Amino acid sequence: MNSRQLVLPRLVLSRRIRQTPFEERVFEQGAKAFTTYNHMPLASYFESAEEDYDHLCEYVQIWDVSCERQVEVTGPDALKLVELVTPRDISSCEIGQCMYAPLVDENGGIVNDPIVIRLAQDRFWISIADSGVLLWMKGIAFGRGLDVSIFEPDVSPLAVQGPRADDLMAKVLGEQVRDIRFFWFIHASLVGTDFIIARSGWSGQGGFEIYLEDGSKGLELWDAIWDAGQEFNIRAGCPNLIDRIERGLFSYGSDMTIANDPYECGLDRFFEPEKEAECLSHSALQEVRRNGPAKNLVYLSIEGDVLLSPRDTWDVLDENDKQVGIITSLAYSKNYGSNLAFAMVEADLNQHGNTLYVDAGEESYRKATIKNRSWN
Amino acid sequence: MNSRQLVLPRLVLSRRIRQTPFEERVFEQGAKAFTTYNHMPLASYFESAEEDYDHLCEYVQIWDVSCERQVEVTGPDALKLVELVTPRDISSCEIGQCMYAPLVDENGGIVNDPIVIRLAQDRFWISIADSGVLLWMKGIAFGRGLDVSIFEPDVSPLAVQGPRADDLMAKVLGEQVRDIRFFWFIHASLVGTDFIIARSGWSGQGGFEIYLEDGSKGLELWDAIWDAGQEFNIRAGCPNLIDRIERGLFSYGSDMTIANDPYECGLDRFFEPEKEAECLSHSALQEVRRNGPAKNLVYLSIEGDVLLSPRDTWDVLDENDKQVGIITSLAYSKNYGSNLAFAMVEADLNQHGNTLYVDAGEESYRKATIKNRSWN
Repeated sequence: MNSRQLVLPRLVLSRRIRQTPFEERVFEQGAKAFTTYNHMPLASYFESAEEDYDHLCEYVQIWDVSCERQVEVTGPDALKLVELVTPRDISSCEIGQCMYAPLVDENGGIVNDPIVIRLAQDRFWISIADSGVLLWMKGIAFGRGLDVSIFEPDVSPLAVQGPRADDLMAKVLGEQVRDIRFFWFIHASLVGTDFIIARSGWSGQGGFEIYLEDGSKGLELWDAIWDAGQEFNIRAGCPNLIDRIERGLFSYGSDMTIANDPYECGLDRFFEPEKEAECLSHSALQEVRRNGPAKNLVYLSIEGDVLLSPRDTWDVLDENDKQVGIITSLAYSKNYGSNLAFAMVEADLNQHGNTLYVDAGEESYRKATIKNRSWN
Repeated sequence: MNSRQLVLPRLVLSRRIRQTPFEERVFEQGAKAFTTYNHMPLASYFESAEEDYDHLCEYVQIWDVSCERQVEVTGPDALKLVELVTPRDISSCEIGQCMYAPLVDENGGIVNDPIVIRLAQDRFWISIADSGVLLWMKGIAFGRGLDVSIFEPDVSPLAVQGPRADDLMAKVLGEQVRDIRFFWFIHASLVGTDFIIARSGWSGQGGFEIYLEDGSKGLELWDAIWDAGQEFNIRAGCPNLIDRIERGLFSYGSDMTIANDPYECGLDRFFEPEKEAECLSHSALQEVRRNGPAKNLVYLSIEGDVLLSPRDTWDVLDENDKQVGIITSLAYSKNYGSNLAFAMVEADLNQHGNTLYVDAGEESYRKATIKNRSWN
C-alpha cells in the first residue's frame, strides 16, 4: 500500500473539521499535507518531514496546534474528578504546573494521554490527544453527581519550538520566559490579549506553548511572533514524525488505544500505585500488575534503506516466522542511520538487543533490533 | 476563502485515521477527495458532487461508510442506559427495527444524532455520527453503576444506495430484501459471512446498509456486489452533499453541535415529552420547552449563481444589515435552480417566505428566502 503514501488523497475541510484561529497562515506558508485531530486540521508537513526536521533542530518554528483542545474542569469537585480519571497523583500538581497524565478506564484501557494543567485550586485544563475526553468526563461527572462544570473552552494552543525558541520568546515577551521551568507556565500577554505560556510542546527540541483564549486574536498573535522571528530564521511547522519517534513520543490512536493498558506502554512509570486508590481504573490496574502485561510497546530499529510508513501496520515476526507483534509508528532517521519504529510485541521478547523481523511487504523480511527506550 | 476549496490540501492517512475493510476499492475507484469521520476516512466525492449526484439519482452506488461506527450496548441495563441518553421512546423500538434517536446531555445539548438498532431485547447498536458517543456512554454507565457492557464492535457498514438498489440486492441476496421496510433490518449472508441488512442510508434515493462484522471479508463483499451491479451501472460513491441538503439531512458537527438543543433543530418532533422522564436531559428540555428556542435551524434558498461552500460559515443578515444568523451547510441544486443552505437564525425570523441576506464575501449581499422544511 506504499503507493497510497506517495500520492496522497485530497482533504475536504468542512465546518465539521473546525477552523482554527491560525490556519489562514498555515495555508499561506504552504503546508503540503494535513491530518485531522479532535475535529480540526493539523499540518503533517510543510516541505517534507525530513526538511522540516532539519530546520526544527537548528532554528525555531511556529506550530498551529489548536487541535490540542482543552477540557476545562472547574468547581468544588474538580480535583476529585481529575483524580478519578487518571492513576497519576494530581493532588501534587501545583497551580502553574503541567503534568502528563494518562487517562484510564475501568477496564484498564487508555482513554487518552493528555497534559493536565492546573490553573487554580479547583480549575484544570486537560490538554488532550485525539479522543472524546470531554464527553467521557461529562458522562462520569453526571453519573456520579459531581459538582463540576466541564466544557471545551475557546482555547487554541500555538507552539513555538526549536533551539531558538527561548531567544525569540524572550524578545517578544521579555526575559522572564527564559526562567519558565519545563512543564510549568506563567501568565503573559501580547497583541492586547492575555494568555498562559508553558514550557512544553510535542518536540524534542524544546520550546513553548501559548494557550490563546481569544480566537479573534489568532492572526495578530501569529504575525507578532512571525515578524520577531525573522532574525532567528523562523518557519511555519508542525509536530514532526521523525522528531517524535527519535524522542520516544507515543501518539494516541497509533501507538496505543483503549485496547491497551498503561503497563503495556510503559506509562506506569508515571503512577504511584499507593496513590491510585482514588482512580476508577484502580482494580483493573491491580489485576494487570499482578499478571504482568502480555505485550509491550517497544523501540525497534529496522535495518536497511528508507521505509515508507504502512497505511496501517506491518507484522513483526520471530526467527521462526511466527507473528509476535505489529508496527505502530515508523520513520527513517538520518541521525541514527536506521528506520526507527514503535512496535507492540509479546512481552517476553522485550529485551534490549533482541532480534526480530518485519514483514514490510518486500521480498524478504527486514531484520530489526529491540532498543531499551533509547535508540543508541 | 473560496480559493482553498478549489485547491484542496493533501490528507495523510496514518494508523490513527483507521483503515476500513473496503478502502482499497475506494482508492481504486478513484475517490478524489476525503474527509475524516470517527477517526476513519470517508470519501467526499469521486468525479464531483454534481456528477456523483446525477448518477446516484438514476442508478445504484456502493458506499464505504465504515466510519458510521457502532457503539454496542448489551446486558441487563442496556435499555435503561439507551433510554437515559435519548429523549426518544426507545422502549417502543422492536427487535429488527432502527430508530433515529438524537442523544442529549444534561444541559439539553445534542451529543450526536445516531440510529439506534435493536438487535435483541438487551442488545443495541448505536450507529453514530461523528462524536465520541462510546466514551460518553461508558462514563455514564460507570458513574451510574449500570450493568451493561459498552464497546465498539468490529462492524463496518457498506451502503448500497440509489433507485436500482432493490434490484441489485434482490439479485444478490434474494427477493426477500424487497420486503424490508424502511428502518427495519433482516439477517442475511454473502461470501460466507452473516450480517444484518437494513433499509436505510444517508441519501434521499433509497437503499440498504449492510453491517459487515468480519472485516477480513470486506473486499470480497464489495466485489460480489460490484460484479452483480454491473448490469445496473453501479459506481463507487459516498454521502452526497447536494442530495443530503435537498433531502433535509443535517450533519452533526456542521449543522448542530453540543451547543445546540433539539428544539432549535426541529428534532423535538421525534420525542414524546411524557415519555421523556427516563432521560437525563429531561429537566433541561422542559426548560427549553417552557422558554422556546432562541434560534432555529432553517432551510434557506439563496438566489444567484453557484456558491462554493465557505470554509466555516457566512453571516446571515436582516434587511437592516443586522447579523441574525449563520450558514451551516450549503450546496447548489440544479433541480431547484438555487443555492440551498441550512442556517441557524433567530427564531422569530423563522417563517416560510421571509427574506434574509447572506454575506458570501462578495460585493453585495445575496438575497435568501426561508423555506418551510421543503425546498418548494
